[in-house]
Amino acid sequence: MLKSKVTISDVAKAAGVSSSAVSYALNDKPGVSAATRDKVLKVADKMGWRPNMAAKSLSNASVQSIGMVMTYDTQVLSVETYTMELIAGLTSELEKEGYSLTIRYASNQQAEMDVLRDWIATGGVDGVLLTNIELGDPRVELFSEHPEMPVLLLCDSSVAGGLTALSDDEQSTAHLLVDYCHELGHQRIARIAGPEELSHTFIRDNAFMEETAELDLQYSCFHTDYSPESGRKCTERLLSLPKPPTAIIYDNDVMAVSAVRTAKKLGISVPDQLSIIAWDDSFLCQVNMPSITALSRDVVARGRACARMLLGMIDGQDVKSTTDAPSELVFRDSSGPLVG
Amino acid sequence: MLKSKVTISDVAKAAGVSSSAVSYALNDKPGVSAATRDKVLKVADKMGWRPNMAAKSLSNASVQSIGMVMTYDTQVLSVETYTMELIAGLTSELEKEGYSLTIRYASNQQAEMDVLRDWIATGGVDGVLLTNIELGDPRVELFSEHPEMPVLLLCDSSVAGGLTALSDDEQSTAHLLVDYCHELGHQRIARIAGPEELSHTFIRDNAFMEETAELDLQYSCFHTDYSPESGRKCTERLLSLPKPPTAIIYDNDVMAVSAVRTAKKLGISVPDQLSIIAWDDSFLCQVNMPSITALSRDVVARGRACARMLLGMIDGQDVKSTTDAPSELVFRDSSGPLVG
Repeated sequence: MLKSKVTISDVAKAAGVSSSAVSYALNDKPGVSAATRDKVLKVADKMGWRPNMAAKSLSNASVQSIGMVMTYDTQVLSVETYTMELIAGLTSELEKEGYSLTIRYASNQQAEMDVLRDWIATGGVDGVLLTNIELGDPRVELFSEHPEMPVLLLCDSSVAGGLTALSDDEQSTAHLLVDYCHELGHQRIARIAGPEELSHTFIRDNAFMEETAELDLQYSCFHTDYSPESGRKCTERLLSLPKPPTAIIYDNDVMAVSAVRTAKKLGISVPDQLSIIAWDDSFLCQVNMPSITALSRDVVARGRACARMLLGMIDGQDVKSTTDAPSELVFRDSSGPLVG
Repeated sequence: MLKSKVTISDVAKAAGVSSSAVSYALNDKPGVSAATRDKVLKVADKMGWRPNMAAKSLSNASVQSIGMVMTYDTQVLSVETYTMELIAGLTSELEKEGYSLTIRYASNQQAEMDVLRDWIATGGVDGVLLTNIELGDPRVELFSEHPEMPVLLLCDSSVAGGLTALSDDEQSTAHLLVDYCHELGHQRIARIAGPEELSHTFIRDNAFMEETAELDLQYSCFHTDYSPESGRKCTERLLSLPKPPTAIIYDNDVMAVSAVRTAKKLGISVPDQLSIIAWDDSFLCQVNMPSITALSRDVVARGRACARMLLGMIDGQDVKSTTDAPSELVFRDSSGPLVG
């Protein structure tokens, strides 16, 4: 459908001057009297005239937008608040420069690659934020071949292939968690992780194995798709072992909350017989009864930091990879020493 | 920053033919041999050439995107899942037509109006979704003056000023809730509502007053900004009354969950002394202990419906306002008859 917009000739007609007079006035060029210029500007403003974005886009190759592709299952998106917090931080910071966030949904990796190739080829966005980086992720290769498109990866710099990354200190955080459980006296600890193919899961997996081996603790790990349902299944499996773990760390809040219910159903007391810890704090963890010990990160602030880094790159600055402030462990009622 | 893209002359150079030959080949026009056409298409594809989006945008006035402005407090966005579910539904349906969702953040109404005027004037998006319609909302007037821009309002059609709306049957839902409390034997019911200026709050307010008056029930209502903190304050105020309500309905899930904690702190038993009901179901309501009776809507499906209506309008179809499927009350452990 063709859309009618306020054109220069509309403004000319309404102001009773020629189109070229309008063009001179609006582009602040000589060739028109001060009185005419004033008149044109007033009429144009009243009619809601704006420089055509597409024309502008042709001339300076900027569409004032950052792109992000979502590949998550829509059901997981609905229960986790991480993505919404990231979007809130991103958009509020982008707004300061009049930038928008362009979101495309992709049901699989091939569809995501198509969207990204399209953006690179058409300049449909000025920069791209990539999340959930996988091991050997084809997106890393794609953007390495297209240095003209600013891109920021939310992942450990070790898997970013030299592209700019904003990373978490997963290693230190994993050590913090294992040490906490160890100090409480737990000898068998487990982790219900996210998807195995995600690079941050892999980095956490290694860090946990390293630290538990060093402290001579028994460690087991299951991988899930982050859904409460898969979290529940893994929890049941772990708790049915002859020697079940006495502390379980969950890679998101939703699975941790779900685990409290599962434990209750199985007659296992939290935290007396089982400590539950969530990797990512949320309102869910705060209001759950018992409230859940969790790693707290300011995701809204992280969204803002992503926006600033991307805007810097678009501006041609040499933006370096950086590591986010470490997560903080918030002690609540779901964890403690073994009782009895 | 100027960005380098694959241009027609790049393809020409790589294919060893003239720029006009490339142009003929890519635009499927005569003037070039079949062999040259094949060669050009292969080279162009390999180089990642795509028709320039900005140029395309100038010619057919479509940017393949729906716009949405967020004005929410970033802290509320972080705890409620409604917006994320809406976005998930929207983007997954838009993707079928290769459309994206463009999100801008606005810290106040003036800033939102500026973004909307800009979109109308520049064609920065092909259609707009408006949420949280207020009474006398200036956005309704703006879009009434610009019928060329497809717009969908998520609000009651009575406040949509003749624009296309997707509405909830708030009236029937309010009656369903009041009748449920009445049947359980509650005589004093209260509601902790959303912001007073929102049109759907207003419609709910009236429906509640009507129905409680008809059934001769005592009814009180407080308005909040939807945050758990404001929900807590209002709950404390209501429960400190000499004759406190015995059933409270909350306009979102977060405040209802927060209320369960508040009641516990005050030594009030849920549901024996106080029934708590949430207007909008969520994972929070399901996993809370006690689980919370809630009105369930499929927000992801609503997002999809919004996308379909907007795509229809962009396609030039005469899309009529419609009312969403009624909400369903999911009975859980936080509500029941008074005991003792």
